Amino acid sequence: MSSMGDKVKIEIFGESHSAAIGATICGLPAGEKIDIDELCAFMERRAPGRDATSTARKEPDRPEFLCGIVDGVLTGAPLTAIIHNSDQHSRDYSDLRVRPRPSHADYAASVRYGGANDIRGGGPFSGRLTAPLCIGGGIALQLLAKRGIYIGAHLASVAGVKDTAFDAVEIDKDTLLSAGKKPFPVLDGAAGEKMREAILSAKADGDSVGGVIECAVIGMPAGHGGPLFEGVEGKISSAMFAIPAVKGIEFGSGFACTEMLGSEHNDPFVYEGEKVVTTTNNSGGIQGGITNGMPIIFRVAMKPTPSILKEQNTVNLETKENTTLLIHGRHDPCVAARAVPAVEAAAALCILDLLEGNN
Amino acid sequence: MSSMGDKVKIEIFGESHSAAIGATICGLPAGEKIDIDELCAFMERRAPGRDATSTARKEPDRPEFLCGIVDGVLTGAPLTAIIHNSDQHSRDYSDLRVRPRPSHADYAASVRYGGANDIRGGGPFSGRLTAPLCIGGGIALQLLAKRGIYIGAHLASVAGVKDTAFDAVEIDKDTLLSAGKKPFPVLDGAAGEKMREAILSAKADGDSVGGVIECAVIGMPAGHGGPLFEGVEGKISSAMFAIPAVKGIEFGSGFACTEMLGSEHNDPFVYEGEKVVTTTNNSGGIQGGITNGMPIIFRVAMKPTPSILKEQNTVNLETKENTTLLIHGRHDPCVAARAVPAVEAAAALCILDLLEGNN
Amino acid sequence: MSSMGDKVKIEIFGESHSAAIGATICGLPAGEKIDIDELCAFMERRAPGRDATSTARKEPDRPEFLCGIVDGVLTGAPLTAIIHNSDQHSRDYSDLRVRPRPSHADYAASVRYGGANDIRGGGPFSGRLTAPLCIGGGIALQLLAKRGIYIGAHLASVAGVKDTAFDAVEIDKDTLLSAGKKPFPVLDGAAGEKMREAILSAKADGDSVGGVIECAVIGMPAGHGGPLFEGVEGKISSAMFAIPAVKGIEFGSGFACTEMLGSEHNDPFVYEGEKVVTTTNNSGGIQGGITNGMPIIFRVAMKPTPSILKEQNTVNLETKENTTLLIHGRHDPCVAARAVPAVEAAAALCILDLLEGNN
Amino acid sequence: MSSMGDKVKIEIFGESHSAAIGATICGLPAGEKIDIDELCAFMERRAPGRDATSTARKEPDRPEFLCGIVDGVLTGAPLTAIIHNSDQHSRDYSDLRVRPRPSHADYAASVRYGGANDIRGGGPFSGRLTAPLCIGGGIALQLLAKRGIYIGAHLASVAGVKDTAFDAVEIDKDTLLSAGKKPFPVLDGAAGEKMREAILSAKADGDSVGGVIECAVIGMPAGHGGPLFEGVEGKISSAMFAIPAVKGIEFGSGFACTEMLGSEHNDPFVYEGEKVVTTTNNSGGIQGGITNGMPIIFRVAMKPTPSILKEQNTVNLETKENTTLLIHGRHDPCVAARAVPAVEAAAALCILDLLEGNN
Repeated sequence: MSSMGDKVKIEIFGESHSAAIGATICGLPAGEKIDIDELCAFMERRAPGRDATSTARKEPDRPEFLCGIVDGVLTGAPLTAIIHNSDQHSRDYSDLRVRPRPSHADYAASVRYGGANDIRGGGPFSGRLTAPLCIGGGIALQLLAKRGIYIGAHLASVAGVKDTAFDAVEIDKDTLLSAGKKPFPVLDGAAGEKMREAILSAKADGDSVGGVIECAVIGMPAGHGGPLFEGVEGKISSAMFAIPAVKGIEFGSGFACTEMLGSEHNDPFVYEGEKVVTTTNNSGGIQGGITNGMPIIFRVAMKPTPSILKEQNTVNLETKENTTLLIHGRHDPCVAARAVPAVEAAAALCILDLLEGNN
Repeated sequence: MSSMGDKVKIEIFGESHSAAIGATICGLPAGEKIDIDELCAFMERRAPGRDATSTARKEPDRPEFLCGIVDGVLTGAPLTAIIHNSDQHSRDYSDLRVRPRPSHADYAASVRYGGANDIRGGGPFSGRLTAPLCIGGGIALQLLAKRGIYIGAHLASVAGVKDTAFDAVEIDKDTLLSAGKKPFPVLDGAAGEKMREAILSAKADGDSVGGVIECAVIGMPAGHGGPLFEGVEGKISSAMFAIPAVKGIEFGSGFACTEMLGSEHNDPFVYEGEKVVTTTNNSGGIQGGITNGMPIIFRVAMKPTPSILKEQNTVNLETKENTTLLIHGRHDPCVAARAVPAVEAAAALCILDLLEGNN
Repeated sequence: MSSMGDKVKIEIFGESHSAAIGATICGLPAGEKIDIDELCAFMERRAPGRDATSTARKEPDRPEFLCGIVDGVLTGAPLTAIIHNSDQHSRDYSDLRVRPRPSHADYAASVRYGGANDIRGGGPFSGRLTAPLCIGGGIALQLLAKRGIYIGAHLASVAGVKDTAFDAVEIDKDTLLSAGKKPFPVLDGAAGEKMREAILSAKADGDSVGGVIECAVIGMPAGHGGPLFEGVEGKISSAMFAIPAVKGIEFGSGFACTEMLGSEHNDPFVYEGEKVVTTTNNSGGIQGGITNGMPIIFRVAMKPTPSILKEQNTVNLETKENTTLLIHGRHDPCVAARAVPAVEAAAALCILDLLEGNN
Repeated sequence: MSSMGDKVKIEIFGESHSAAIGATICGLPAGEKIDIDELCAFMERRAPGRDATSTARKEPDRPEFLCGIVDGVLTGAPLTAIIHNSDQHSRDYSDLRVRPRPSHADYAASVRYGGANDIRGGGPFSGRLTAPLCIGGGIALQLLAKRGIYIGAHLASVAGVKDTAFDAVEIDKDTLLSAGKKPFPVLDGAAGEKMREAILSAKADGDSVGGVIECAVIGMPAGHGGPLFEGVEGKISSAMFAIPAVKGIEFGSGFACTEMLGSEHNDPFVYEGEKVVTTTNNSGGIQGGITNGMPIIFRVAMKPTPSILKEQNTVNLETKENTTLLIHGRHDPCVAARAVPAVEAAAALCILDLLEGNN
């Protein structure tokens, strides 16, 4: 379970302060050309320092390809790309083993790994590990675009401030991809300004906020997925929970469906020319675990960054006493913003895997 | 992906009207005694006809063990158990291929399988397939109980009517298991009555309602799971989406976390005797994808049953014209009620897999 | 690892004396018609009592289909078929736990399963478990034949008596399939008679003999498989070792290649019309783990049946003393003969998996 | 299938002339100390230029650790180590696409990858890819040694010249590991000299020779593995076929068992103090797919290096004509010698996976 995918499989490795982080992607189709500049531009979207609301830490996230690609063309062998960890502060992290940060992985990981885990900068639990996810996902996005399948996401809400939602039934490609082209990934700029204010206000207070990311896939043909453990929702959901800070996911109408009547919720079929479509899309493009040709739509909930600059209660695992902790350092007051491309990347890998595996 | 689990693996087979449905579970620990009566009692909880709100269809869901168990003791070889499909109505289902039911799998599956899928009674998409899930899960629940790990669920809401929620920090075993002992699985009987009214009212109108199921795991030790694709949330979520009609899942504070500040959301650590606990449990027992020793808590959203007794718009796939459809037959007006043990079962299999796999 | 295959996956369950044995096969292509009579005829080939050299035990090996097939057409859902265990002798097997039979699984399994394993008739280690393998393999053989791919095997040697070998470069379909049509599966009837004599002679002496099975796949296109862990040899070999009593496998020239010069061993390429072929086939149709379009050829070594009717030295695990053992009952003096269809079945499942998975 | 293992999993990446080759190993036990010098010494054993019989090509095979290890201690996160490809000759390899080398992967791979595969130096099919296998295997060997499990291999034969075989019943650790300490890995130095002569003689003639490698595992407890697809032989065999040039594998008595009587072949049990052992070990330490506590013994057949300096017949894939080919460059006239540590490495990964997975 350290990798994801059946036919197109990604394995992510690295720790926040190890020599490098990276990913190996197997099962990519040989002979396809990858636009490396476009990939790097995609990677840039999750890089910090892109907006005043994100951490000031600079990470040159340009991937270095070790194998699997020659002159930009996929060879069919596993593709491995790495990013060297250069901007590390070599300070002492050992205190985190003694006084675990609330709602971080520190305590759980110390039990899991008997204290041997690399705790510097969060180790393998760092949001930085979404960079290799974006390498694989960025490649997948390009391969999908060649087949007329596009994936886009935006910040649906931050600290309760809501962006315009995607139209579930009809999403044009430009709208879908528009948020990704902005420094702050929203559809509605005015809503985005309010979100930024909320983030900066929390930041000024040493605090943090959460958010919801909405993602859609358009152009996906009907007939992929299956019942039970083959379902598309299960596949996408487990991919999303690989992104740090995700605490929930819902497809289509999601939790709201639990307050609807069947007669309201059912999506009536209708012909649009030769194509079977539905006039509503509460199903989020998936019925019985199988794509039905409508946009796949889902939303993920991201918790407020646990790294806050306020004194917090914790324990001292050495003295076995209760104590307090004050975290220092640079942190994103809202990880949701930078996670938008990670959500697209994880979705793209799932969709490509379904297509390449003929599932 | 037709099976779930790494060390303890379940494979489910069968179609609603095939000769039998069943499951093969591999990796169960040899030598453990299973209480078959207790297992059957668990299975009874998902059987129809238990409450006036569920379908009248009678299914004798007593599993027949083909192998893997001798005198109630697990042999260590794969355990296969089946349930014969006896109460089938041999009516003609071919119309469903021509006029797919809205928000059912009919259309998506016909594309997926080129029309060869067994469409009778929903085929492999039928909620009936949660019966074999409950065989595996019921066994897992017994094995977990021997280790002091208990799993219980209840209807957290139906049609917007809310049950009392579990106390996220401290759940005693009796409360946890209480809903499962009632014909209608709620903690608060009064809330249950209101839910039943909402269901029966929808039923009288030929309509259906959705609901939320809350599930908790207590006694789970800290230190299971891992970052990225090894996370416990991802594992549980993909298991839950294998249950028909699930459209969302959230852990701990879930979607509500997106409107909280980090300072509110973080779970402070404190010593409770020798044990490290948290004073709140917004994390739902999982941090960095790893269990932290607190109760694992999650909620799943279940859509209203798509089978409603009202005329609906759909298409005729033969004539390629728009048409209408009126479904007949016996259906659960709220699938959430009977899905409660299925949620427990899926969770139990995930937890046992983590423990047996030492993950 | 209790199942085999990536896209087309088989899971085998059952124990020699459990209620039933069977298999679930996932990933079979929906809509394909299976000839059940042909499948049963294939199953007959491994059934006992077909030749005087095999055990007299009668097993009605007609599979009962539980799901996944309607009117002989694959539905795309998992196909499960079982065979009830009817001809069991309900004698006491508990002595085998105390005094393990030499070169049987008795001792190793008792350690593995802490003594909880079903020991009756060999439990899951019985050669009887090749029957469900043949269900899956028999279906795979039919699906491959529709694509012009044929698989056949024969007894290449028994007790040192050699059958004619397949011509590695050019195998016509009739020759390939001829052995399978005979009660005793050899190409050369005279050699077969000598083998049968050797078997009956060993049997008369309460002893047993081993043998080599040669198997070939013709019509397989070039370009399936891959380097390292994706290799076709590795895939086929692990499938073969799932057959009880197999102790070795070799592809193409096999062990003989270790005494050849490169200049002798290399297979020169040449055009045969438009098609690239090789003038020798020491590679056995696989180069760099990938099929090259030539016949895939391999041989498996099967040990002499460990069940012999002679007194043998063993231990008493209760008293912890050395002792002796005299096994009674009906046994095949040469399991290789009945294993021929099992070898074809396992190969067919591997090949179909490669094709369906586009690997 | 691009990776191997269930609990301890290795994924190998890289191509002969890509920027780097490497491996990611997941599931290694956190907190264990690795001796990097010892690992490098193990890697040295497969490096070229160690004996006059191997290629003169110099490869500094010192692994660079990217993650998963801090101060020599395993962190529990995936461990990735790479080796930069420095000693590449940047000559033109494009002719290999047009005129494939006999018994190389050139032709099969060009079909598999539509001609997009990296053909330089053999791409992913190069024996060089056994270097990352040895990184993972070298770590596994150290972890196994801490548990009293040792693995050693030697050249059992080269060009028909035979080394002393391991004593199947009783192998002391010193003998087991002795061949690995010599530049030319044999037990019997005199036999080794004859082998070297045969190799140098073939080399002088521009030709190559094959060989057999025998490997043993001592100290392995009884009770690991299982029937059918869980068998230890199947697991080890598929690992061995990942090593380029392997064409066969046999366990215990192997192919010789096919000419033995059951009464000769069966391994009688006897008590050796408190321990159950067998007085012969034709089973090669595995019965019913499960370890029985005796040494695991197997032999792999390696074909003569296909790269020979003689004119060979091949095809021109562009002109579609028959033609000839004369390969230049530096090649091992006998790959078996350098493959000895690769065999140990692959075996070690299998054994560690069984133990860590509690299989």
